[in-house]
Amino acid sequence: MDELKILNRVLPGLKYGSEVVLPPGDDCAAIRQTPGMLLLAAVDQLAENVHYLHSGTTAGEAGAKLLKRNLSDIAAMGGIPRHCLIALAADKNRSDQWICDFLSGAAGAAEKYNVSLVGGDLCALTAAAGGDGVGLVASLTILGEVEAERLCRRDRLEAGDGIYVTGCFGNSYRSRHHLDFEPRLREGRFISGRYSRCMMDVSDGLALDLRRMLISSGLCARVDERAIPLREGADPAAAWSDGEDYELLFSVPAAAEEEFLSAWPGAGGGFAPVSRIGTAVAPETDENGNRKAGMIYDLSGKEIKLEHWGYEHK
Amino acid sequence: MDELKILNRVLPGLKYGSEVVLPPGDDCAAIRQTPGMLLLAAVDQLAENVHYLHSGTTAGEAGAKLLKRNLSDIAAMGGIPRHCLIALAADKNRSDQWICDFLSGAAGAAEKYNVSLVGGDLCALTAAAGGDGVGLVASLTILGEVEAERLCRRDRLEAGDGIYVTGCFGNSYRSRHHLDFEPRLREGRFISGRYSRCMMDVSDGLALDLRRMLISSGLCARVDERAIPLREGADPAAAWSDGEDYELLFSVPAAAEEEFLSAWPGAGGGFAPVSRIGTAVAPETDENGNRKAGMIYDLSGKEIKLEHWGYEHK
Repeated sequence: MDELKILNRVLPGLKYGSEVVLPPGDDCAAIRQTPGMLLLAAVDQLAENVHYLHSGTTAGEAGAKLLKRNLSDIAAMGGIPRHCLIALAADKNRSDQWICDFLSGAAGAAEKYNVSLVGGDLCALTAAAGGDGVGLVASLTILGEVEAERLCRRDRLEAGDGIYVTGCFGNSYRSRHHLDFEPRLREGRFISGRYSRCMMDVSDGLALDLRRMLISSGLCARVDERAIPLREGADPAAAWSDGEDYELLFSVPAAAEEEFLSAWPGAGGGFAPVSRIGTAVAPETDENGNRKAGMIYDLSGKEIKLEHWGYEHK
Repeated sequence: MDELKILNRVLPGLKYGSEVVLPPGDDCAAIRQTPGMLLLAAVDQLAENVHYLHSGTTAGEAGAKLLKRNLSDIAAMGGIPRHCLIALAADKNRSDQWICDFLSGAAGAAEKYNVSLVGGDLCALTAAAGGDGVGLVASLTILGEVEAERLCRRDRLEAGDGIYVTGCFGNSYRSRHHLDFEPRLREGRFISGRYSRCMMDVSDGLALDLRRMLISSGLCARVDERAIPLREGADPAAAWSDGEDYELLFSVPAAAEEEFLSAWPGAGGGFAPVSRIGTAVAPETDENGNRKAGMIYDLSGKEIKLEHWGYEHK
């Protein structure tokens, strides 16, 4: 399944009510709810042996991950999560106990992050011929809210902005970070409060997600690779492309950077560390007069080339 | 998978914010949004060869059905659908074309019913061992709204109320009604306007869903079986238990019945027919002093016994 190709065929035909401030394409959709307040909504799936390995992952860990990866999407909009709904489909070999543990894992995480689980659906997988299906997949729809003036979008980067990340990158699978991460909700609220209008979450790899932000915003970036914080066991290539980091990538306008860095609560305030990894720059014009957004340069101005860019949704 | 058993284990432990007016258990959850207005939310899945047969169903029909069965849940609350999000998981044998056609079918139905598709996710199914999975399942979260004073719940039946249904029942699969039905949105709005506070949709079989309404409300029903409208090719047993009717089951207080029936717009107003099938009655007290809700009696007062009650979610 080529997700990008499918979306490129289906998305352009969609029509939205005028209350849809932000249609699909960002971490969440944003819908005008009351004057000054937006409803945030996103759906994400967790497929066994794609997003976690059945072997070595408890059902409760998998359920909690399903919720937390959706919380990361709310954090990236600068918002507050409120409600969720879960759908789960499994083949007949999955025990009711496993499914209960999965749902309890999600419900426990929901309680921890003050999210109400308000709906759900369970069903059995079958095969095309009508026989038994094989596999397990769950989807979660997260609902949240954010003040309209705090909404952070991925297409709001401006040339000259500092580019920042929370936490560290790479080696998420072996370190089990992909299961035990903390969604950056507090950090997202702090950032959206006064310092940024441009943010997204990094789940498919820093290189790929940074490039998405750059292309959305029509810009390029100059990045100090040595400034990218590495998770234990990760080298720079892994930090660029492993994915499943669930950290925030955001911009701070140059004029606000000093104040931002001195105000960041840090570990003492229960916050993840924050790192300035680069600067947004205008795209260069090529020999044909085209401006190519999405390029990532090192400090010397040389294009950074990577063997892997991240998880490409194919 | 025994859905009821799983829900009975998981649901009691859930905690809800005080803004959750109606938690899981009805057709939708209802969440206080603004003074006087409730957000409605529900999630439902469509599994291939459970909810439609791959053979003989186009991808577009299946996608439209996924949306419409969720619209039926909004109709049953007396509400208006607004937004939806779709997640789809498929094995690797499913073509991108089929998936595009499925999503376009859902999107086309969304446009028809003024619903904005604001989010989605696609992923691949795998097997427990990490190999290829087999099957296809999609989930849709529907968001809508309803004025607080128009909210219709399944637990609001009162003794003496007339029990009504829209449309007709039975033989939904062979007649293809389960694919080409019209969600009863206009009818639901009309009913919730002034005539009823108790409504649900009939999707698992009239007998089973009526019993759910009766048990939720602590009542029984006396039903005139000859008054149950039959779909072409259906006999009374099929009408009671086939399921997939997507009609509305609702009550009208005795004092309002005459006005309701004369006000019903009917076919001339583009409405489904409406039928009075029975009356809500208080449960009898057995020899141990217990009152047993959920019984369905015929006009002579004899318990109606059915071989099949409907689709039991096992």
